[in-house]
Amino acid sequence: MSVHIGVDLGGTNVRVASVLENGEVEEMMQEATDAEQGSAYTIDKIIRMIEAVADGRKIEGIGIGAPGPLDPHRGIILDPPNLPGWDEVPIVDQIAKHFKVETKLNNDANAAALAEAKFGSGKGYDSVFYITVSTGVGGGLVIDGKVFNGAQGYAGEIGNMILNPHGYQYSNLNKGALESYSSGTAMAERFHEHFGQYGGAEDVFSLVSQGDEKAQRIVDEAVDYLAMGIANVTHVINPAVFVLGGGVMNAGDLIWVPLQDRLEDYLYPGLVPHINLKQAALSGEAGVIGAALLPGQ
Amino acid sequence: MSVHIGVDLGGTNVRVASVLENGEVEEMMQEATDAEQGSAYTIDKIIRMIEAVADGRKIEGIGIGAPGPLDPHRGIILDPPNLPGWDEVPIVDQIAKHFKVETKLNNDANAAALAEAKFGSGKGYDSVFYITVSTGVGGGLVIDGKVFNGAQGYAGEIGNMILNPHGYQYSNLNKGALESYSSGTAMAERFHEHFGQYGGAEDVFSLVSQGDEKAQRIVDEAVDYLAMGIANVTHVINPAVFVLGGGVMNAGDLIWVPLQDRLEDYLYPGLVPHINLKQAALSGEAGVIGAALLPGQ
Repeated sequence: MSVHIGVDLGGTNVRVASVLENGEVEEMMQEATDAEQGSAYTIDKIIRMIEAVADGRKIEGIGIGAPGPLDPHRGIILDPPNLPGWDEVPIVDQIAKHFKVETKLNNDANAAALAEAKFGSGKGYDSVFYITVSTGVGGGLVIDGKVFNGAQGYAGEIGNMILNPHGYQYSNLNKGALESYSSGTAMAERFHEHFGQYGGAEDVFSLVSQGDEKAQRIVDEAVDYLAMGIANVTHVINPAVFVLGGGVMNAGDLIWVPLQDRLEDYLYPGLVPHINLKQAALSGEAGVIGAALLPGQ
Repeated sequence: MSVHIGVDLGGTNVRVASVLENGEVEEMMQEATDAEQGSAYTIDKIIRMIEAVADGRKIEGIGIGAPGPLDPHRGIILDPPNLPGWDEVPIVDQIAKHFKVETKLNNDANAAALAEAKFGSGKGYDSVFYITVSTGVGGGLVIDGKVFNGAQGYAGEIGNMILNPHGYQYSNLNKGALESYSSGTAMAERFHEHFGQYGGAEDVFSLVSQGDEKAQRIVDEAVDYLAMGIANVTHVINPAVFVLGGGVMNAGDLIWVPLQDRLEDYLYPGLVPHINLKQAALSGEAGVIGAALLPGQ
């Protein structure tokens, strides 16, 4: 029996899995990324993990999901903030040279988008826009079962979408970008401003469920901007479905009900009956499953 | 010899042309739309114009570009503000019944996008985002030579993209939508506010070329928001080229130089060297040429 290998390379951990044709994870290994040891060290580790998971079986293909920016066409990791010290790392060449099989690289959000489109909540739709609302806000577009990378690989980078030219600014993002309002990091920052404590989105939601009005305003703002972001994507490409994942989207009705509600206000009336927001189905495994789907894309 | 027919149905005029395989307009007729006489009247007129242009030759296919909203899948014009009184008009059925050839409907911006992608400034690129900056702001996306309509036909409707939740509001658009800042209508409104006179974008540009600072601020604002809109589209789908048409884009360096400049500020640094903005090449004929390309899409 042969195996399809998916590698989910994150800033903290790297996971390698063998994924079956039906999208099920057969076997998965996880280790610390140790990015600061340099790319050669981590890539050696990935190669050993792939060998362990494959366990002597023929490898059909290897896909790698990694933090951006990266170049999916050339298979090179550029200089991601989440992999400090990595600079123009030709990871595809290095891994393909060892295993001599088709090896593909794409960013983690695109890999997750592909997994959701093929085996998760986007299954059966010809255009799927995946959004992850977590530490940051990222996205990925899948059209007719294929990742739409865009000319330079920046399709889906909606965290940087400008929604308020007079708004907050974080790191290297545009002033008033979606991520500066709707990410878990943004909510944690507002939490600190308003409550003088350090915490995360989950603390804000916890206060909201106790009826706290200041916390509610933090959620309202995050949801409002997320709705604007979704409306803007709709008025650019009008995908058949939006699949939303990431920790912030696990807050249940506290986020999904107002999101649906606000979104209706921002769409042309003809679109309102067709709003199609779904929660991601594959959660933590989307990364390796999607990565395993990259070869042959 | 057989002919491909393109119909450009506007609020004021309707134009019918025979278009050659190389994209050249062979013959074109224009008449008043007389939309207020009702759709049956106008459609009869279109049928007579098609017969006149075809002049007994075999018709290969008929394409119609019309103002939105419309349903390209069902071939129905919904209730466009520019065709008052028209409501759920099955124009494709009515015209196809008469000529018994493949007949397709799409919105005017998508038709123009297709023409520019195939024969104009977007030729040779696998993803083309066309933007018209005129009375309104509209757009169309062409991927691999095909119009990308989106699930409900709203792809490319970037005039409604929210860029400032505290901004201007026009008609049925979102508050702070792109069109409320960068359209010719928006510039004319600012002109009236600041100068107490009625005029158009061309009057604003004329004052700018004379060194008027108030007029310059009007242009700066329009350009700034247009740059944000283009940046947002880039961070959603990263098309290989943007093709910009419409009257406002005829202002030469007064608009193109600051636009390029502002856009650089709003893109991830990795994208800046790849900015690819081009002026539309087919101008007034893009509508009929693109319409003629719709059958077979």
